[in-house]
Amino acid sequence: MKEIQSNKNPLIKTLKKLHQKKYRDQQNQYLLEGFHLVEEAHKSGAEIQIILVSERGQKEWGNFLTDYESICYLVSESILKELSDQPTPQGIIAVVAKDKRQQQLKKGAWILLDRVQDPGNVGTIIRTADAAGYDGVILGDGSADIYSTKVLRSMQGSNFHLPVITMNLVVAIHELKKMAVPIYGTELNKAAKQFDKVPKTNAAILVGNEGQGVSKELLALTDQNLYIPIFGQAESLNVGVAAGILLYYFKV
Amino acid sequence: MKEIQSNKNPLIKTLKKLHQKKYRDQQNQYLLEGFHLVEEAHKSGAEIQIILVSERGQKEWGNFLTDYESICYLVSESILKELSDQPTPQGIIAVVAKDKRQQQLKKGAWILLDRVQDPGNVGTIIRTADAAGYDGVILGDGSADIYSTKVLRSMQGSNFHLPVITMNLVVAIHELKKMAVPIYGTELNKAAKQFDKVPKTNAAILVGNEGQGVSKELLALTDQNLYIPIFGQAESLNVGVAAGILLYYFKV
Repeated sequence: MKEIQSNKNPLIKTLKKLHQKKYRDQQNQYLLEGFHLVEEAHKSGAEIQIILVSERGQKEWGNFLTDYESICYLVSESILKELSDQPTPQGIIAVVAKDKRQQQLKKGAWILLDRVQDPGNVGTIIRTADAAGYDGVILGDGSADIYSTKVLRSMQGSNFHLPVITMNLVVAIHELKKMAVPIYGTELNKAAKQFDKVPKTNAAILVGNEGQGVSKELLALTDQNLYIPIFGQAESLNVGVAAGILLYYFKV
Repeated sequence: MKEIQSNKNPLIKTLKKLHQKKYRDQQNQYLLEGFHLVEEAHKSGAEIQIILVSERGQKEWGNFLTDYESICYLVSESILKELSDQPTPQGIIAVVAKDKRQQQLKKGAWILLDRVQDPGNVGTIIRTADAAGYDGVILGDGSADIYSTKVLRSMQGSNFHLPVITMNLVVAIHELKKMAVPIYGTELNKAAKQFDKVPKTNAAILVGNEGQGVSKELLALTDQNLYIPIFGQAESLNVGVAAGILLYYFKV
């Protein structure tokens, strides 16, 4: 296996730039850390371009790595630490090509994210949509980039299980309507319909920004806007939790 | 208003230690950042011991601050930045005494946390329990400290709205059983009962550690263990989302 021992190696310096969205977009690639996620990428047929592994990792995952011998580099823990955004690096970091497949909308169950900005929320919602058996996730403009390390970590590999489409939400709603998919917005407004009064069905659920919720423009395009009742003194629910309640309500 | 301009001021140096649990426990006090949270502390009657405010904050919240004139310090942005764990400090940080009230368990709806370690998860679950109108939260040994800044931030003030009791969970389950509160554990095991097959009622819901779930010892003490079905390829749900689904299932 090839080796890189210096943090000043030009490849390492270049890869470090992938922590910035700008470079991920330019290069069409991203960093994926941890054996579990790299294995999920492998299983899904994602294009793994480079693997950096520590000595410890090489021993532990030697079998898996034989498939990738030609693109695998043995590196120091200090290099992994430099490329990781975690206090304790996980022994393996891969460079993976972004998913280039043109994903199509189809009749089914979807979740739409309007400017959800917290990476943990975006990742958690994609993970929940996967768990709940949804057909896919539509990320509107202004949502967190799914190739950031924080989103990748909280998705736990779900991006390899279901389509995550970046798309203007006005267009997406228009397309889904043509396929007769019911579209439910969400709002913090008791005048909206309490969610559990709506029949359970495959639907497109639209959730919004942490501070402002779904934009008025989009709420005006839905079939119905839903409200999760607040019984206590909290002002609102975390958007990841609200999405989870609705995703499961329509499915069980 | 008194002023502190030097980051080396002994008070500032002492307060900075409150980022460590050890000092919070010793001093029975914690740091609370942001006007919204300080206002929630005020409304709930919490003992606010010191307020540090920037010049900008003093202008914005002058009315509120008149009640606290004698314990209020005008400080530089740089001091707030030193005490904050956020990239952009919020203009106000209070030192608040931990809640010393002896909270009692009572017959009602509860959520129990078994070694939930991620501060964001602990905070989100407490916020959801508040929203869903639960009677309180019981934190077992090994869960994240609710007075850490991350938990405080994700609770969004819900700790001022409902009792959060730290207690051994074996004892808590025993007490709740004596009051005839049904106790539902959660597990990632299809042999458990699918949650929506159980009648909706005020109950105690027991959720567990991010990696290991609820301990076997505790699962053996419940009335019933519940399972949230996984329809897709995700291995599990985020514990904050799972808690949200169950908290609302039993309430709506």
